[in-house]
Amino acid sequence: MSESSKAFQVPYYAVIFSSTRTDGDNGYAKMADKMVELASKQPGFLGIESARDEELGITVSYWDSLDSIKHWKEHSVHRMAQEKGKTDWYQSFKLRVCKVERDKFFDM
Amino acid sequence: MSESSKAFQVPYYAVIFSSTRTDGDNGYAKMADKMVELASKQPGFLGIESARDEELGITVSYWDSLDSIKHWKEHSVHRMAQEKGKTDWYQSFKLRVCKVERDKFFDM
Repeated sequence: MSESSKAFQVPYYAVIFSSTRTDGDNGYAKMADKMVELASKQPGFLGIESARDEELGITVSYWDSLDSIKHWKEHSVHRMAQEKGKTDWYQSFKLRVCKVERDKFFDM
Repeated sequence: MSESSKAFQVPYYAVIFSSTRTDGDNGYAKMADKMVELASKQPGFLGIESARDEELGITVSYWDSLDSIKHWKEHSVHRMAQEKGKTDWYQSFKLRVCKVERDKFFDM
């Protein structure tokens, strides 16, 4: 086991988005892929992790600053996706903005 | 759509644990359930969210303070699970300790 090199410099920021879906795809998968691609091109984007099972989905995106998060939140294409999320894709969601104070990455 | 009542008072703390698994269960599922049950009984525990798909698992636990996180980290049964995680269950993992600065919960 080794502690791998740190990718990011603390402090940085995380947006934790946890959601339950409505039934059916309704264009969700395609838009989700597009949002990841678009987010990764935004200033201050550091990375993204995502997992979904039958009960819950969790996506955590990492950013260098609160300003970068605000910029992405207000991106016009992202805003359209946010609206579709509320009307079509999500039954519920929780959104948390956090300051990452320390991290450890391990490869076994 | 309605913004639901907030469960927690900001600021609080999140531990983001993202991991890739080794092949096979090797006692993982049983221990994972036990750890959630045990964590939820610890002082300062606020909640936990978890999702795993074929590529990645993400578990986020929420706590009232850094002291509560430290206390749980050092719990003897949890320490045994941490060791088993490193030797048997995980191929890699990332652990991040964050301060939640704001949150929004929505029920559609």
